[in-house]
Amino acid sequence: MAAPLTAVRAAVRPCGARRAAAAARRAASSQSIFEADPTLAERPQSSVMSPLASVRMGRTEPSVFAEFSELSEKHHSVNLGQGFPDFPMPAFVKEAAIEAIREDYNQYSRPAGHHRLVDVLARRYSPKFDRDIDPFTEIGVVGGATNAIFSALVALVDPDDEVVCVEPYFDAPKIAADLMGATTIGVPLRTDWAETSADWRLDLDELDGALTDRTKLLVLNTPHNPTGKVFSKAELEGIATVVKKYPKLIVLTDEVYEDMVFDGLEHVHIASLPGMFERTISVFSAGKAFSATGWRVGHAIGPEELISPLVRVHQASNFSTPTPLQIATAIAFERGAQEGYFAEFSATLQAKRDKLCRLLRTAGLSPIVPQGGYFLLADTTKVGGVTTEFPLWEAPEDMPLRDRRDFAVCRLLCERAGVTAIPASAFFSLGHRHITDSLARFCFCKEDKTLDEAYKRIVHSGLNATWV
Amino acid sequence: MAAPLTAVRAAVRPCGARRAAAAARRAASSQSIFEADPTLAERPQSSVMSPLASVRMGRTEPSVFAEFSELSEKHHSVNLGQGFPDFPMPAFVKEAAIEAIREDYNQYSRPAGHHRLVDVLARRYSPKFDRDIDPFTEIGVVGGATNAIFSALVALVDPDDEVVCVEPYFDAPKIAADLMGATTIGVPLRTDWAETSADWRLDLDELDGALTDRTKLLVLNTPHNPTGKVFSKAELEGIATVVKKYPKLIVLTDEVYEDMVFDGLEHVHIASLPGMFERTISVFSAGKAFSATGWRVGHAIGPEELISPLVRVHQASNFSTPTPLQIATAIAFERGAQEGYFAEFSATLQAKRDKLCRLLRTAGLSPIVPQGGYFLLADTTKVGGVTTEFPLWEAPEDMPLRDRRDFAVCRLLCERAGVTAIPASAFFSLGHRHITDSLARFCFCKEDKTLDEAYKRIVHSGLNATWV
Repeated sequence: MAAPLTAVRAAVRPCGARRAAAAARRAASSQSIFEADPTLAERPQSSVMSPLASVRMGRTEPSVFAEFSELSEKHHSVNLGQGFPDFPMPAFVKEAAIEAIREDYNQYSRPAGHHRLVDVLARRYSPKFDRDIDPFTEIGVVGGATNAIFSALVALVDPDDEVVCVEPYFDAPKIAADLMGATTIGVPLRTDWAETSADWRLDLDELDGALTDRTKLLVLNTPHNPTGKVFSKAELEGIATVVKKYPKLIVLTDEVYEDMVFDGLEHVHIASLPGMFERTISVFSAGKAFSATGWRVGHAIGPEELISPLVRVHQASNFSTPTPLQIATAIAFERGAQEGYFAEFSATLQAKRDKLCRLLRTAGLSPIVPQGGYFLLADTTKVGGVTTEFPLWEAPEDMPLRDRRDFAVCRLLCERAGVTAIPASAFFSLGHRHITDSLARFCFCKEDKTLDEAYKRIVHSGLNATWV
Repeated sequence: MAAPLTAVRAAVRPCGARRAAAAARRAASSQSIFEADPTLAERPQSSVMSPLASVRMGRTEPSVFAEFSELSEKHHSVNLGQGFPDFPMPAFVKEAAIEAIREDYNQYSRPAGHHRLVDVLARRYSPKFDRDIDPFTEIGVVGGATNAIFSALVALVDPDDEVVCVEPYFDAPKIAADLMGATTIGVPLRTDWAETSADWRLDLDELDGALTDRTKLLVLNTPHNPTGKVFSKAELEGIATVVKKYPKLIVLTDEVYEDMVFDGLEHVHIASLPGMFERTISVFSAGKAFSATGWRVGHAIGPEELISPLVRVHQASNFSTPTPLQIATAIAFERGAQEGYFAEFSATLQAKRDKLCRLLRTAGLSPIVPQGGYFLLADTTKVGGVTTEFPLWEAPEDMPLRDRRDFAVCRLLCERAGVTAIPASAFFSLGHRHITDSLARFCFCKEDKTLDEAYKRIVHSGLNATWV
């Protein structure tokens, strides 16, 4: 990045006070910080909470994407909210799927994955993981990363268990944990002044403090959504050292952006660190890798004793994964590696990142420059005209999500500028939401013209002109 | 059917004694007849029962298909076990998928289903259900019928609830109920002498006796797997009358073979009967309808208060269903109706049914002629060389599945004749397995040459020559 960066003040409360308050809150209640969320009870009863639904359904929360997808549609806004490309997927992968359909790969596959795909995946990941991965026992092909995460939670987590998630995070593990009656506990990435996503850091003492003998899963995500952080090898080694203190602890690592890493950085698999493969499920997505989010093909890799129950749940929920799309994915990974596809896609995304950063900076919405992935967080403190009960930095932690400043800002951006971004506090649990009250998530995996249009709309709206 | 039929003696124990024994067994234990299954504990510990797996995983049983798929592969047998066509799916549906992929329908769809598909489905089912079905609230597009059934169970059934299944049955609801900690109770179809699948009957008193205020779901299946029974309107009206005595009871009806009905019979949707739509989830499969079992596209129809939580679970487990396959399915249902596809496919299947019935009869394995679906049950009493601890009719009910006579017969057919069929007792719960100890399930949704080859192999093996 040659351009000078505007650093972003992402959290303002003293770390010590914050942690003490959070600890007190947890100590006062045997419930998780999530279950105690007062916003849950305050939300209007939706049709989802049907009187006929199971008790477990009442433990789930509506997704932030529901509100903003609807709002986006209503205002015909440029949607930089949801994480999918608005450009076509690679032609060679499309052709592979077309060929598979023509050649009658249209019947059930082996539930754990078509042998052709698991063979390719074993060859792809064995060198990355520095071990011989068994295609038939250590790989599960599933209905996208969401299905991998859901299946892992159902397969491994009991109601008495705790699931620790590094936050901010993608909501899939939380929803599955809620359904299974487990307790989710968030350990936040923190930063006091962020120029790039590298400035978001996980405090290992705070992580250690959140883990107990009841913690069944630690959920990681690198490259990280929504910050764009790419965990360094040293950071992952630090996490591994803490993890190994808890013999029963399993790591679930979401690495769907594995090949989208910028500025020459390297993605490190935590499962490749000594002693970690045995206790880790690594989750990947062909949909993300090949810009086909609508294909719903993903894969999980780990030791047989973790993959076997995961596949059994996948089999119960889906039976198998669409066969022609599995065959296409096998061909895509093979040819992609041969033809330099992954490096090329990464370079394309890096250029888009740079473009969106430049545009947002010009528009007064300073970005925290991401090291990888699809997303970035940008500072919205200059967005004027925001009506909230409390000014920025003073919103109480237990304020409902919908009333927080970042929600108000994103609504305003959508309604008045015609650009959709996602309020970042939605990716945190109660106790940590203030960390991103000043930030919004933008997706840059979009056509250049889409990014240009978003910029024009923000500037034209005049919303970016005033300070809080 | 012009050919004379050999009637099949399918159950021999007096009905009253059997029911009294079953009632006593249930009364003696608060557990379900399934949970008390002694075969569960006796099965060798598989890798599935990983010490790291959740408690709920220990409640699930290995599938009968695992053993026979493996055996079939080992002996290169003609596989009439698993229910998928070995002929290509229709070209017009393939071309629709190819077009959708080319036209960039490759990103996330709406979780409840692409608007184009739900629109087509609403138009298709509104006249069948005799009401205006709302495409956006009363239809959920999911990852196949298995995903619909799984999602319904997670969305609706609590651990204290009971799920009543008419048996024999497809195992998906039982597996999902096991995972959710609910109790499954089987109410069998019974017959003393069956010429056709119409001779399998549900005793409404027995059904009523199995239902209680704790029954959350009644699982039906018509056209029925494995018997081929097509429930008549009068039979479904009888069931509806019983169902309405239980205000909280929801019906989950698996109708994936809806268009595969023979001899001019009509498939009746129980949801179309007065007062039933409000309490019914009807499950359908595009994979079955268009001979694309590997596409994993299905749909559920019902009132919003049932479909909404179902879709929410689908969203948590899968997020959405593969977009290009949804678009292809929309086109397939539209063009299929216009071009007479469904009647044509049904006629093709009827001819295959007739062919397999004729061949099996000649080979001494009298079929119970199915009225619909993919499958038939055939009498295996003439298969000689079977080594079991007990002769037919004398096997105790609590004998492990793997030791029952029908398992021994199917193993022998696979190993010595090179033809795979599925032992029918696997589709029953403990207490009712003797009903089909003399029967095996054959799939006739296969190329004519596959059916011919199976016949030749059975005759050549000489296994069909001797009486028990």
